Amino acid sequence: MPDPVLLTPGPLTTTIATKAAMLRDWGSWDQAFNALTASVCRDLLAIVHGEGSHVCVPLQGSGTFAVEAALGTLVPRTGKVLVPSNGAYCQRIVRILDVLGRQRVVLDFAEDTPVDPLRIEAALAADPAITHVALVHCETGTGILNPLPEIATAVARQGRALIVDAMSSFGAIPIDARSMPFDAVIAASGKCLEGVPGMGFVLARSSALEASAGNCHSLALDLHDQWLYMRKTTQWRFTPPTHVVAALRTALDQYLAEGGLSARAARYAANCQTLVEGMRRLGLSTFLPDAVQAPIIVTFHAPASPAYDFPALYNKVRERGFVLYPGKLTQVETFRIGCIGAIGRGEILQATAAIAAALEELGIPAP
Amino acid sequence: MPDPVLLTPGPLTTTIATKAAMLRDWGSWDQAFNALTASVCRDLLAIVHGEGSHVCVPLQGSGTFAVEAALGTLVPRTGKVLVPSNGAYCQRIVRILDVLGRQRVVLDFAEDTPVDPLRIEAALAADPAITHVALVHCETGTGILNPLPEIATAVARQGRALIVDAMSSFGAIPIDARSMPFDAVIAASGKCLEGVPGMGFVLARSSALEASAGNCHSLALDLHDQWLYMRKTTQWRFTPPTHVVAALRTALDQYLAEGGLSARAARYAANCQTLVEGMRRLGLSTFLPDAVQAPIIVTFHAPASPAYDFPALYNKVRERGFVLYPGKLTQVETFRIGCIGAIGRGEILQATAAIAAALEELGIPAP
Repeated sequence: MPDPVLLTPGPLTTTIATKAAMLRDWGSWDQAFNALTASVCRDLLAIVHGEGSHVCVPLQGSGTFAVEAALGTLVPRTGKVLVPSNGAYCQRIVRILDVLGRQRVVLDFAEDTPVDPLRIEAALAADPAITHVALVHCETGTGILNPLPEIATAVARQGRALIVDAMSSFGAIPIDARSMPFDAVIAASGKCLEGVPGMGFVLARSSALEASAGNCHSLALDLHDQWLYMRKTTQWRFTPPTHVVAALRTALDQYLAEGGLSARAARYAANCQTLVEGMRRLGLSTFLPDAVQAPIIVTFHAPASPAYDFPALYNKVRERGFVLYPGKLTQVETFRIGCIGAIGRGEILQATAAIAAALEELGIPAP
Repeated sequence: MPDPVLLTPGPLTTTIATKAAMLRDWGSWDQAFNALTASVCRDLLAIVHGEGSHVCVPLQGSGTFAVEAALGTLVPRTGKVLVPSNGAYCQRIVRILDVLGRQRVVLDFAEDTPVDPLRIEAALAADPAITHVALVHCETGTGILNPLPEIATAVARQGRALIVDAMSSFGAIPIDARSMPFDAVIAASGKCLEGVPGMGFVLARSSALEASAGNCHSLALDLHDQWLYMRKTTQWRFTPPTHVVAALRTALDQYLAEGGLSARAARYAANCQTLVEGMRRLGLSTFLPDAVQAPIIVTFHAPASPAYDFPALYNKVRERGFVLYPGKLTQVETFRIGCIGAIGRGEILQATAAIAAALEELGIPAP
């Protein structure tokens, strides 16, 4: 039986070409590998048009490691961070700031409502002590898209710095350093770029990074130190995940060949539309209104049947070759289905057919 | 041309079976993947006979991430760490402790001299404020082996806790939790276990880990939190490097099939002996006396010829299919050659022949 298709926020289904790039061993001191790293960084920076203003600093570990590294490196110990919060990954930023001992203030929004730029701007105007805003671009907890362009403008108008967790949006939803001022955009190898998981990266404003020496609470997560060393030696400071980097290089080649961000965005949007239409035909409704739904991952209300439980649905869909994802909301019973990875309309159609069959087996009738 | 053989301290040359294990995508919420993680942890713990007393906590990132995580999690903020130092990786521990703001005292040894258990014990007896000793087992900077059994006994006799950076020794040099008391042994996927790089792990004494809540300076590197979450859910807290974990599973299968630690130790010892003999025939001498040389990586004095420079030698040997490693000593000109990875006597013989040819081309005559 072939491997199941992963309908999750990552790790994702990747192409066989991307995985086959891991069939080589690379020396971390070797020029060939360092050229590979440099080319990956160059391409990541180009996706946000950050050449000239920003630099790319890769980091070992998962995306959360890179988020903590960006906060710890770029926010001075005397800084204060505003966190607009409408989901689990916003709350994770708050938790990181608390562990790091950085001052923070949370601006709460409902989980089905995008963060409001006007409220952010008012909060900044009211508190001059706030130095940074830490925004989650696409909140994976629900799949909601927060309005980055308007927020970036508001934050810049108030003269503060913006740090963007773009983990699940990077490469598929436009981010433009020329028109959306930011000090850092953070993402990872295993999301919309369709690499394998194992490294994150931060696209940091050069001037902000240069000013950040000595801020960081950690050696391993110190982006300033990582960047200085890499600039001096072309190498990673500590052992790089060589195979993951090689897979990301090959994934980026396919990304560019597909047509870059606009092509990837179009494929994911089509996946999302096919998914939502198919699920609605099965009587399942989305948690979010369509207008604020990012084409990344969709939260569905659980069927209102006593026969439903998520593990049972998961297993029956898994048997048919598809991996679903649990919900992350506390107030309402939901589950999630990802639209991203090396999949298209065909896989989504098969997935909704598998879900239909699973629901029928569970005795949950379609309307 | 086939990929070069990596004669480095890692990333290493791995088998094609290990790399081929990365040709699948795994869901991080999926039971199949979580069973894989559990089986890897079980086997890692068994290598040090830690069942019952210790637990295995895997961590995303390079080995240094796991070293920082162990120090940050297990040493209380009021703790004080003794660092016996005879090389670069000992100094890295000191640097981590300084960034973390943990008190530390350094006991210096010459780089060609093993750490002395008697001096450690005297230092502990003289300073009751010291809570932990942080030891590098095999110091990769030179390749020297520090006497872990005697040091563990001395530290236990003084009632302190021992943290062992076993990055380059784990799986090839005996470590036994039953006879060498330790609170933590730290290693990584891409060293003597011959997996690919991208994750570390800490084998921690259960009682020490249980008592460590709230110590850590970082969320991403908090081993207590990682362990609690994994125990509760069987999952990693943050996105795991799924392909790296799968490769480590397959590498461990081969490790066990080869005959476990004793077989791996014997192969590396034979590699080391073949290497040293071959290099001595070329007139190149080892930095360390044979008695303290670990069979992991060997530091050689650079040839005393004005025609020598390391990049030139590196490139000429690289052309012939072998990757050497630079020296890490500041006082004396050296280079290093690793004995580890999925290689045997044949590769080592070919490597010394390549070095002979390269030296001849550089105009550096053998004696």
